[in-house]
Amino acid sequence: MNISTEDYILTKKQNDNHQTIIDVNGTIIGGNNIVAIAGPCAVENNDTIYKIAEQVKQAGATILRGGAFKPRTSPYQFQGLKLEGLRLLRDASTSNNLLVVTELLDVYDLEDVYEYSDIIQIGARNMQNFPILKEVGKLNKPVILKRGLSATIHEFLFAAEYIMQAGNSNVILCERGIRTFEPFTRNTLDISAVPLLQQLTHLPVIVDPSHGCGLSELVPSLCKASVAVGSDGIMVEVHTNPSDAISDKEQTISTKDFTTLMNELKPIANAIGRTI
Amino acid sequence: MNISTEDYILTKKQNDNHQTIIDVNGTIIGGNNIVAIAGPCAVENNDTIYKIAEQVKQAGATILRGGAFKPRTSPYQFQGLKLEGLRLLRDASTSNNLLVVTELLDVYDLEDVYEYSDIIQIGARNMQNFPILKEVGKLNKPVILKRGLSATIHEFLFAAEYIMQAGNSNVILCERGIRTFEPFTRNTLDISAVPLLQQLTHLPVIVDPSHGCGLSELVPSLCKASVAVGSDGIMVEVHTNPSDAISDKEQTISTKDFTTLMNELKPIANAIGRTI
Amino acid sequence: MNISTEDYILTKKQNDNHQTIIDVNGTIIGGNNIVAIAGPCAVENNDTIYKIAEQVKQAGATILRGGAFKPRTSPYQFQGLKLEGLRLLRDASTSNNLLVVTELLDVYDLEDVYEYSDIIQIGARNMQNFPILKEVGKLNKPVILKRGLSATIHEFLFAAEYIMQAGNSNVILCERGIRTFEPFTRNTLDISAVPLLQQLTHLPVIVDPSHGCGLSELVPSLCKASVAVGSDGIMVEVHTNPSDAISDKEQTISTKDFTTLMNELKPIANAIGRTI
Amino acid sequence: MNISTEDYILTKKQNDNHQTIIDVNGTIIGGNNIVAIAGPCAVENNDTIYKIAEQVKQAGATILRGGAFKPRTSPYQFQGLKLEGLRLLRDASTSNNLLVVTELLDVYDLEDVYEYSDIIQIGARNMQNFPILKEVGKLNKPVILKRGLSATIHEFLFAAEYIMQAGNSNVILCERGIRTFEPFTRNTLDISAVPLLQQLTHLPVIVDPSHGCGLSELVPSLCKASVAVGSDGIMVEVHTNPSDAISDKEQTISTKDFTTLMNELKPIANAIGRTI
Repeated sequence: MNISTEDYILTKKQNDNHQTIIDVNGTIIGGNNIVAIAGPCAVENNDTIYKIAEQVKQAGATILRGGAFKPRTSPYQFQGLKLEGLRLLRDASTSNNLLVVTELLDVYDLEDVYEYSDIIQIGARNMQNFPILKEVGKLNKPVILKRGLSATIHEFLFAAEYIMQAGNSNVILCERGIRTFEPFTRNTLDISAVPLLQQLTHLPVIVDPSHGCGLSELVPSLCKASVAVGSDGIMVEVHTNPSDAISDKEQTISTKDFTTLMNELKPIANAIGRTI
Repeated sequence: MNISTEDYILTKKQNDNHQTIIDVNGTIIGGNNIVAIAGPCAVENNDTIYKIAEQVKQAGATILRGGAFKPRTSPYQFQGLKLEGLRLLRDASTSNNLLVVTELLDVYDLEDVYEYSDIIQIGARNMQNFPILKEVGKLNKPVILKRGLSATIHEFLFAAEYIMQAGNSNVILCERGIRTFEPFTRNTLDISAVPLLQQLTHLPVIVDPSHGCGLSELVPSLCKASVAVGSDGIMVEVHTNPSDAISDKEQTISTKDFTTLMNELKPIANAIGRTI
Repeated sequence: MNISTEDYILTKKQNDNHQTIIDVNGTIIGGNNIVAIAGPCAVENNDTIYKIAEQVKQAGATILRGGAFKPRTSPYQFQGLKLEGLRLLRDASTSNNLLVVTELLDVYDLEDVYEYSDIIQIGARNMQNFPILKEVGKLNKPVILKRGLSATIHEFLFAAEYIMQAGNSNVILCERGIRTFEPFTRNTLDISAVPLLQQLTHLPVIVDPSHGCGLSELVPSLCKASVAVGSDGIMVEVHTNPSDAISDKEQTISTKDFTTLMNELKPIANAIGRTI
Repeated sequence: MNISTEDYILTKKQNDNHQTIIDVNGTIIGGNNIVAIAGPCAVENNDTIYKIAEQVKQAGATILRGGAFKPRTSPYQFQGLKLEGLRLLRDASTSNNLLVVTELLDVYDLEDVYEYSDIIQIGARNMQNFPILKEVGKLNKPVILKRGLSATIHEFLFAAEYIMQAGNSNVILCERGIRTFEPFTRNTLDISAVPLLQQLTHLPVIVDPSHGCGLSELVPSLCKASVAVGSDGIMVEVHTNPSDAISDKEQTISTKDFTTLMNELKPIANAIGRTI
């Protein structure tokens, strides 16, 4: 490999068997089973999040995703339901026996996000927000760290190193597409990042194909590729009715399509000796 | 989808069942079976190309690749064995009952390349070399058209349109990685290009993960992703002894690893209802 | 122009004469005079920052830059002198009759940075850190907003819109290079962003060629280009002895070279009807 | 500098005073005077090319540009007037005492392009078309080599090395924008390439801001930046009536604006001790 990794300390894979396995209330991330994380871009209302939770659970997801605090390009776009969104997300998850992952956007909201979630997400725009990395590094909850829009693998690992250096070793890396010249897709999913990271670090690596391409038509195929390439999980934007979604409707698949997809992923997982 | 495709005529998929199937002397490209194309970056000598041909055939490849005319960044690098390389490639293929694909770099060499090959490759640097596209468009041999280093999907389809408009409808599109900011990998394999192209065009789509990432350690995983994502073929740089390869040694896998890989790809192909 | 700007409200240029002019204690930004901002990457010690301040002032700079809180890729790299750095920077500036600009990295440090600086910088990594944008939007001090590493012009303007929407209309946009495939330079300075932004927004636009290219040998030429293209200011990393600089030594020019440069910039500014 | 250049031989600058100066029938490229190359994207008809030639000559241009063979993304777009275009271009130039530069797209047209032009252009898409580089390397006419859309500086220099290695040492390098993620501009003009190349090679370096940004509103500002940064020439798309241009109308400026621009460039050239 053509870049020295000698500066990584805590994130570095020490040998071929060095693999972090994270146990979140009984759900294992980084083991032989591939986790399925699903849910809407944003929590919208009680009825919708409940139905989505119920249906993704039935399809085989074990973790519910949903944004309560939304990072939006424009200040005039919907910014999320905030605390109310956290509560709805928690209720829908608990009722359906799902874990919750949600994004922390502002250190100011840390206590609330900590209280209502099982896994805390640091979004792509905050991958090098060092103060927030240090804060979640002090927590005893797992963190999903999304790769920055133009972050190199080198920078991605060092961002995880910030969290681990502050004390939290339960970091899950999430490839979610990088910014390239191609205008057809919202981002370009860097599928090679999965095996590359798995050779460099012991941390679990998951893939978010929804943001990775931005087009719902491509999401199922990219989930299949993610499973086959060796990803430890997939994170998918799912809605009962994508065309009604407040945000990210172009990249959201229906709960029905998600159910079909989960059935298609099982034999692929089995083909590489894993389960989903 | 966010870009109009109304300008494509010959490459455009007319309906869901519109799919070009290319029969090259009995080997089918674009059908249910996924083709495996394997061989060295460059043809080096008779003994090496023969052994590689023999071993990739045993592993399940049906097409032998190998460069006789090499496009190289520097004029001081090895430029290929030229006509002698074509002859060695043909002999090794015929002896092992394999088809031959090799790159045409210069219209001047068209007759020779035509005579000695079964499929003609247009390399990434020539994807918008319109005169050469028009020339291979006049032939009755299939063409593998590789995506340019920074070609958009839109430009890629129009390059194929140039070939088809000149009369040759047997075009195979090959995703081989695009140029991004990431320095760890030689290129970034745009895996989403496969399902995207398959929704836009009826032409077969294959993947070259060797150039796609430039690192042999990642090639097997990316082949698995390519099969799972729905690619109609894979094109892999393989050598009996990669560390001795004259060119592209960092991205070439051994014939032994290729054999293992082919065995691993079969259940993944089966999992999506295909064969390899 | 090919992208609608109708969504911008506060940042939008309403007519050809619409231009924000910011008066910082008598130093005008956005007027006919081009401001020169100079200083080290990081404040290192009292003696060095004092000498740099003295020499850049003599050369014609009116604003001293220097980092007290440093965003660094690795947690093991020098993170800045923090509060002590702010004090040294303020002392050196006041003694030499210069204004101070320094980066705010963490909302937690807002009071200190506010107290010791005249202009607050939001760095490239925080361009879409919406909570920090909203906080500086409540202040009555000008903000230099640096373009994100892979931020589009569209996203850059909306980040400024966040600050203005929160109440602070004294925003200065700073082009500092974008991330591309080119490995020779640290970033690629997008010089076209200057006239493009000046046609879209009434806010002053300055250029940071030091981060823009990452190579001190190119900085003087890029300053000349920045002045000629119409930039309202330049921001340059300058050190008494660049080879001793703790950080960014490759892109830092000497105070001696900065003095020569300022003399070379004057006739170029005059040639376009401005001063520096 | 962070990349070894030891492999360049013929293109390499041997010392600070090593500078190739090309004399094209009395017009000097690479000397103290900055050359202005202007003309339409494509030669359209006799009347238009004559008027453009006449007006750009009056404004101070010494070389007329115009395409007779056009590389177009789609085979259904206007491909140029071909031989007829070459004749019209030559006539308009000779009548107005201008030199001619035009693009060679196909080796097949080499004799015609050689006969009717003074300088031969190799376009961005052909920067790594090695057969055509070798062919123009055998000629005794200067070559303008445009940087590829995603070519690194390293690859750009080696492409020039191919031409020089074949025998032609009169190569002029042209920066014309690179492909990045930014959608507002057609390309991103890499202005830093000019001083960077001038430190690495003795060959003259010019800038094409028209393709560099793709927006006529930005072209004058980018010409000013190009002159100030030290470019040995500018190449601008100019038409008597841009809105009527058959191709590239968005990036073409009027002959009237070109005249104004040339007057504005003179004092900038003078400010850096040069003329235009």
